[in-house]
Amino acid sequence: MTGLFDGVLTRGPVGPCTDDTAWLRALLDTEAALARALADTGLMTPAQAEAVAGACDPDLYDTGALGQAAAGGGNPVIPLVKELTGRVRAVDAEAARHVHQGATSQDVMDTAAMLLSRRAGDALLADLDSATEILLSLAAEHRDTPMAGRTLLQQALPTTFGAVAAGWAHGLSTAGDGLWRALDESAAVQLGGAVGTLASLGTDGPRVAAALARRLGLAEPALPWHTERGRIADLAGALGRVAGAVGTAAQDVVLLSQTEIGEVTEDGGPGVGGSSTLPHKRNPVAAVSALACARQAPGLVSTLLAAQIQEHQRAAGSWHSEWLPLTDLWRRTGSAAAWMHTSAERMRVHPDRMRTGLDATGGTALSERVTTDLAPELGRLEAHHLVSAACAEAVETGRDLVGVLAERLDGVRSPDRIRALLDPSGYLGAAGLFTDRVTGAGEAGSNGSTTSEEGTHER
Amino acid sequence: MTGLFDGVLTRGPVGPCTDDTAWLRALLDTEAALARALADTGLMTPAQAEAVAGACDPDLYDTGALGQAAAGGGNPVIPLVKELTGRVRAVDAEAARHVHQGATSQDVMDTAAMLLSRRAGDALLADLDSATEILLSLAAEHRDTPMAGRTLLQQALPTTFGAVAAGWAHGLSTAGDGLWRALDESAAVQLGGAVGTLASLGTDGPRVAAALARRLGLAEPALPWHTERGRIADLAGALGRVAGAVGTAAQDVVLLSQTEIGEVTEDGGPGVGGSSTLPHKRNPVAAVSALACARQAPGLVSTLLAAQIQEHQRAAGSWHSEWLPLTDLWRRTGSAAAWMHTSAERMRVHPDRMRTGLDATGGTALSERVTTDLAPELGRLEAHHLVSAACAEAVETGRDLVGVLAERLDGVRSPDRIRALLDPSGYLGAAGLFTDRVTGAGEAGSNGSTTSEEGTHER
Amino acid sequence: MTGLFDGVLTRGPVGPCTDDTAWLRALLDTEAALARALADTGLMTPAQAEAVAGACDPDLYDTGALGQAAAGGGNPVIPLVKELTGRVRAVDAEAARHVHQGATSQDVMDTAAMLLSRRAGDALLADLDSATEILLSLAAEHRDTPMAGRTLLQQALPTTFGAVAAGWAHGLSTAGDGLWRALDESAAVQLGGAVGTLASLGTDGPRVAAALARRLGLAEPALPWHTERGRIADLAGALGRVAGAVGTAAQDVVLLSQTEIGEVTEDGGPGVGGSSTLPHKRNPVAAVSALACARQAPGLVSTLLAAQIQEHQRAAGSWHSEWLPLTDLWRRTGSAAAWMHTSAERMRVHPDRMRTGLDATGGTALSERVTTDLAPELGRLEAHHLVSAACAEAVETGRDLVGVLAERLDGVRSPDRIRALLDPSGYLGAAGLFTDRVTGAGEAGSNGSTTSEEGTHER
Amino acid sequence: MTGLFDGVLTRGPVGPCTDDTAWLRALLDTEAALARALADTGLMTPAQAEAVAGACDPDLYDTGALGQAAAGGGNPVIPLVKELTGRVRAVDAEAARHVHQGATSQDVMDTAAMLLSRRAGDALLADLDSATEILLSLAAEHRDTPMAGRTLLQQALPTTFGAVAAGWAHGLSTAGDGLWRALDESAAVQLGGAVGTLASLGTDGPRVAAALARRLGLAEPALPWHTERGRIADLAGALGRVAGAVGTAAQDVVLLSQTEIGEVTEDGGPGVGGSSTLPHKRNPVAAVSALACARQAPGLVSTLLAAQIQEHQRAAGSWHSEWLPLTDLWRRTGSAAAWMHTSAERMRVHPDRMRTGLDATGGTALSERVTTDLAPELGRLEAHHLVSAACAEAVETGRDLVGVLAERLDGVRSPDRIRALLDPSGYLGAAGLFTDRVTGAGEAGSNGSTTSEEGTHER
Repeated sequence: MTGLFDGVLTRGPVGPCTDDTAWLRALLDTEAALARALADTGLMTPAQAEAVAGACDPDLYDTGALGQAAAGGGNPVIPLVKELTGRVRAVDAEAARHVHQGATSQDVMDTAAMLLSRRAGDALLADLDSATEILLSLAAEHRDTPMAGRTLLQQALPTTFGAVAAGWAHGLSTAGDGLWRALDESAAVQLGGAVGTLASLGTDGPRVAAALARRLGLAEPALPWHTERGRIADLAGALGRVAGAVGTAAQDVVLLSQTEIGEVTEDGGPGVGGSSTLPHKRNPVAAVSALACARQAPGLVSTLLAAQIQEHQRAAGSWHSEWLPLTDLWRRTGSAAAWMHTSAERMRVHPDRMRTGLDATGGTALSERVTTDLAPELGRLEAHHLVSAACAEAVETGRDLVGVLAERLDGVRSPDRIRALLDPSGYLGAAGLFTDRVTGAGEAGSNGSTTSEEGTHER
Repeated sequence: MTGLFDGVLTRGPVGPCTDDTAWLRALLDTEAALARALADTGLMTPAQAEAVAGACDPDLYDTGALGQAAAGGGNPVIPLVKELTGRVRAVDAEAARHVHQGATSQDVMDTAAMLLSRRAGDALLADLDSATEILLSLAAEHRDTPMAGRTLLQQALPTTFGAVAAGWAHGLSTAGDGLWRALDESAAVQLGGAVGTLASLGTDGPRVAAALARRLGLAEPALPWHTERGRIADLAGALGRVAGAVGTAAQDVVLLSQTEIGEVTEDGGPGVGGSSTLPHKRNPVAAVSALACARQAPGLVSTLLAAQIQEHQRAAGSWHSEWLPLTDLWRRTGSAAAWMHTSAERMRVHPDRMRTGLDATGGTALSERVTTDLAPELGRLEAHHLVSAACAEAVETGRDLVGVLAERLDGVRSPDRIRALLDPSGYLGAAGLFTDRVTGAGEAGSNGSTTSEEGTHER
Repeated sequence: MTGLFDGVLTRGPVGPCTDDTAWLRALLDTEAALARALADTGLMTPAQAEAVAGACDPDLYDTGALGQAAAGGGNPVIPLVKELTGRVRAVDAEAARHVHQGATSQDVMDTAAMLLSRRAGDALLADLDSATEILLSLAAEHRDTPMAGRTLLQQALPTTFGAVAAGWAHGLSTAGDGLWRALDESAAVQLGGAVGTLASLGTDGPRVAAALARRLGLAEPALPWHTERGRIADLAGALGRVAGAVGTAAQDVVLLSQTEIGEVTEDGGPGVGGSSTLPHKRNPVAAVSALACARQAPGLVSTLLAAQIQEHQRAAGSWHSEWLPLTDLWRRTGSAAAWMHTSAERMRVHPDRMRTGLDATGGTALSERVTTDLAPELGRLEAHHLVSAACAEAVETGRDLVGVLAERLDGVRSPDRIRALLDPSGYLGAAGLFTDRVTGAGEAGSNGSTTSEEGTHER
Repeated sequence: MTGLFDGVLTRGPVGPCTDDTAWLRALLDTEAALARALADTGLMTPAQAEAVAGACDPDLYDTGALGQAAAGGGNPVIPLVKELTGRVRAVDAEAARHVHQGATSQDVMDTAAMLLSRRAGDALLADLDSATEILLSLAAEHRDTPMAGRTLLQQALPTTFGAVAAGWAHGLSTAGDGLWRALDESAAVQLGGAVGTLASLGTDGPRVAAALARRLGLAEPALPWHTERGRIADLAGALGRVAGAVGTAAQDVVLLSQTEIGEVTEDGGPGVGGSSTLPHKRNPVAAVSALACARQAPGLVSTLLAAQIQEHQRAAGSWHSEWLPLTDLWRRTGSAAAWMHTSAERMRVHPDRMRTGLDATGGTALSERVTTDLAPELGRLEAHHLVSAACAEAVETGRDLVGVLAERLDGVRSPDRIRALLDPSGYLGAAGLFTDRVTGAGEAGSNGSTTSEEGTHER
């Protein structure tokens, strides 16, 4: 069942959780759970329920044939229920009369979509957590490794790789928290019958719905949500955020891997990302693929958000327009997370290149420190002019800024003092503290209040 | 400051909370709060902070001139800080040296965006709550008013207007809960300095950030989020959900207002929605405008989600691409909520037309009840054939189904029994119970567990 | 290869033109054509080219295995070329050295995408043309069938079903023209080698590219377009327009099929769109499914438009992010067109219901005509008041407007005159003329200039 | 009227062509042209038409007041026509009766939107053409300037800056051609009256529409397009493509401007893009802002494409949802083009940095040339192994590849020969030819056929 583009765009465990077989399984699990819920409520016997459940085996059905038959009534549940009923009837005619009882096709599709989402969610969160863990350990390891901070892709002041990796990890983990919350709150069963009144179950409807929720481990909604699609929107938004968190980290990996920067690379082993004809190339294939997946999320989310506008008791088209975008959003976002996991596994950090990068601007990045240091003696304006002139000279002549400044500040500041002022390691501000907040180092200590506010939520 | 399209597309209180003046105010409030936070942390004196705060009066600045000057450095904070510094210097030269201390332009823009979002959020939620309240009261009033349930825009089984209005209200209120949560969790201050290390504040940076958060009543983030934009994504997703909840209700109002249905209308008073030349027209202007606003949300959300991918420590373009979509998303979603509030205020319910609508299908919608009733005596298949034939005859001849069935069931079922079986009021299932769950009627009673799971969250 | 949702969401001939097998075929057709183009240019012998072409048989390859292997280098062409080379080597070792010569993976993917698009385009346009033809014939047949025109879903003035169907047909055919143009102009081969210079072909590169274009019947680009993706954007925009044209027609069919309107229905034969338990339901399954497909296009287009921003000579992620959205955009839009074709085939027009609909507003829609007729005698204001009062009386009392007006205008206008003024058939303006412009009726006649400006373009 | 974000996000001449004043002007121009078209057709006198036209002066009206009044009926044309009629009545009561005759509000809004689009289009294309011209001249100047070609942001084989700039220019100019075509074909007047039949103009409707088109220099449509929005979709797609063409060029400028690459920079003069505290920074403000604008287009396009689905004769919400996205799409895309123009003006090319960049990979990029050169003598496999080993040694030891190879190939190839093989200038393939095709150099010569196929279209 692997598609031609799946190796790149449907990587990882979310793929098999969301393919046609997984959908079929979720649909049948819903029918089985409905039968048992009807039994729980006394509307059929446990034996009948098991007769139904026994026929809810995905191996008995052909997704292609169901797909084709779906064209008749407009969804695949109609032919599935027909075939399921036939199979049950062959075993227990009375049980067959209770197949799908009380439900409309959309009840089964929506519940299955939520079941599938929960399963895909577990798979996705595992990849996200693994990626986060690796990044956290890199952040801890490189807590004090200075590198150039870059704004608008220009070198600005120094930061640390620890802070950078902590930022990626924090983005992934908070996005994961959001997805977990969305699944926990929004993944509910659907059971409303034709128009959301459960009329054919008489007064038993709500109890059957509650039993169905218990059986499937999904939330029980206050009322059917056939055309109130906030739950789907909630999931979509959470997935869009996950894709973005992966995307921004992957983009950074791609940028840091540039031939001219090389501060981080992916080491995928022989034959991965390299090139026999271009031996210097080290393509960050995992980060590139993560980006490719992540970039497909916003359009899919917008389709799902637009589909919230659904008519009356059950909609004419907007509902049907959710199936593939929801599936694809899981698949692309899951694949992005899987690739991010892989990228993290392959990540090699190059502190030497980071140091080279910092040296490229010859200390001018930190020249304002010298200004600040001189201001009390020379006056701010005078200090600023002196330092600016020195920087301009250093840039123009290619000379070392320490040397130029030492000349101009002879008797005012020693070369050592100047060198110390221009040392990136001495101008890292709260980079270490911020890193610790995310890695949890020294948690017991100074930042209790922040941690309680923004710490890892209990999932 | 009202624009040509604002009456339709920027209705209500969110408009003035998000216009250029509101942005300017939020930017200046941030600078003032930063000055006070620096004083809280001992980096300047309270008197100096008040000198800065005193110059943070929006009336002193010209948004148009700032907008034009923004082209130089790429954002409006640069000229604003320059002008602000000048104004402070005229009063207190030493205070002027502390204006914007430690911050980068993006710190101020991002914090202001969150401040503005909190203010807009309060305004939006007020409209949403008012709309919800009206709909809840309609739901309670029409708890038992039967109307045709419609699937794929075809009449199916009966439901009640109570259940319909409860569904709208539930959609609005849960979407509102989601927005409130997103604001509560994600609306944080931003303070990182040039590259997110707060280096120019030495070791005081994190304490200043904490003080800034306290001063503005916004969350304190664990670390700067210059290029980790999950907070924006979270808000965007929540607003997209609100727009959808409004949209689906508004779409239903438009559909129920159709000349041929007329079960709900908007009564906007003289000159609103009517036409002197077409006296029968009752345009549901509020619902139409709500829809017009709501439909613009998904595209704006997708832009914000895509903008999450931001480079290194501060991004080259994606960050700047957030400002207008975020503003416009608030304005359109706020306007949708305001129009929904108006639509609810204008809403007139027509139980007589609902009854006429139900009668249009002459009872055939409920014919399966007759089948079920007859099955024990006649056998299911025989019953089904007999009832189907009667329905076909009724549809073809235009005769009343009760009459046709009475003839065919002479001696088996009395006309009264047939009439009862075909009475929509007798086949409403859990419509009343679902309505009660949302309106809170009889809350103390039977559905405690569901309420606790899905009830109105404490905001 | 039919998927679980394909019956509904991948209907018609575009499906098999765009599945994995079709992609594989297009990739191999490109490699075969490249070999022959190399032979055309003298870089290999025709016999060698045929040895390559002979191995370009899709049945020899396994899309799933290729898909999995694609994860290594980031695209499926790398393993495909490896396997292809192996197969050729087994037959002709020298020919094997020329496999894929001069090309980079993206050259083959992009050319295959365009080949696949041309094939899918032919299939899609056939469905679109068939749908158009049926609608044109309905438009001609119902040129003079009056029906209520509706604005904001309220009945306004009368129009004809001819004009309505002509509008749908015109939308479909102009959208089809646009797609045809986009394919004609933008579907070009790609051949640039690693960085768009074709360096490994020495000075022969451009001639090979020209020969490749000739071989495949695609346009030859002025220069490689590895990261200049306007061609994809052009196709995406054209497909988005087609989806919209289908969607607006399908939405109208759904609305006109409402139980309460019933002016148009879909007759899908036994078991399609009907319901054994709800005999009055006639679900417009084809129009609903067309809508479901059409609504997925805008999000996919936005992903493709966003993907235009590609780095340097070949991009890191954005390119890969095009593959699935482009494929899916073809599949959904093609399916929308196929369903529209089906909807047109199933369409039944009900002039009696249209007449009933017009009568529902009891002539008030046309009351302004009476005002206009009376104005010269009574003065405009007086006439307006008199007619408004009559309308109000008619609406209130439920009496016929003709009767009410006849009473009030006794001696001024005869009942017959009033009836004529209120007759919808007499107030259809240019509806007939507009219909004729689209159906081509009386084309030789009055509207030559417009026809030349907007007539069916030669494809 | 400059907004706070306009300096960055609404740069250039499209801004004033699309603000509220421009909209008001376009609405009034439409009303004036309609009056004159009515006179052309004999439905009013030329003097009356001039009385109407005389009141169509934007300075007489207040967009804010109109905007607020628009809330009543749902669009700003209703209050505008009311006020216009009043003004005309004060001058010529009979003329006042013909104001807006035959038209519905949407006729005027849609026509004005197209008029505004034509005006904005001229402005946008001027910026695009200027940018293209500068880039073409850079391409010609640097036709033979070698630089590193980069794939997946890794250095690959060499290309030239000429080819790179030619690619940008070609993207901009073909996107401009597409926009010009879309405006030429799709910018049509709208005149249909309430339901698209022009009934109130009797049989004169189509002639008035034709006259209106002539008066405004817009296309005459075959029939009204109130709910057939392909024209808007066509414009939207074309604008989305322009934004993408700008975006991909701007992204490259940002990447080439990186501190570590510096092959291209923007020189914006004193105070633009520089930093007094960070003297080494040269922010490419223009390219960054162009990107910021371009990235907002896809979401806006998707909203417009989704809005194509409009109900019956005039839609309930989707139409209204077009106004702002269309305006904003013009403003953002126009601003992107203006910034691209500015970026091109500021562009400084640094061939020395390009040469340094090429040297960074020490010749390994071209090592396959040595392999090819040796293959006939050593056999391909042997040659490959020898060269690979040399590359590995050079990369590991940091030695020059020429030296390493010369040692290993002593007696087989001279150092000069090896140096020639590894010289990037000798491995540029068709880069020069492709550049010439775009700049038009040597056009009379060899590539006539391609030029005719893809050359600059006559606008």
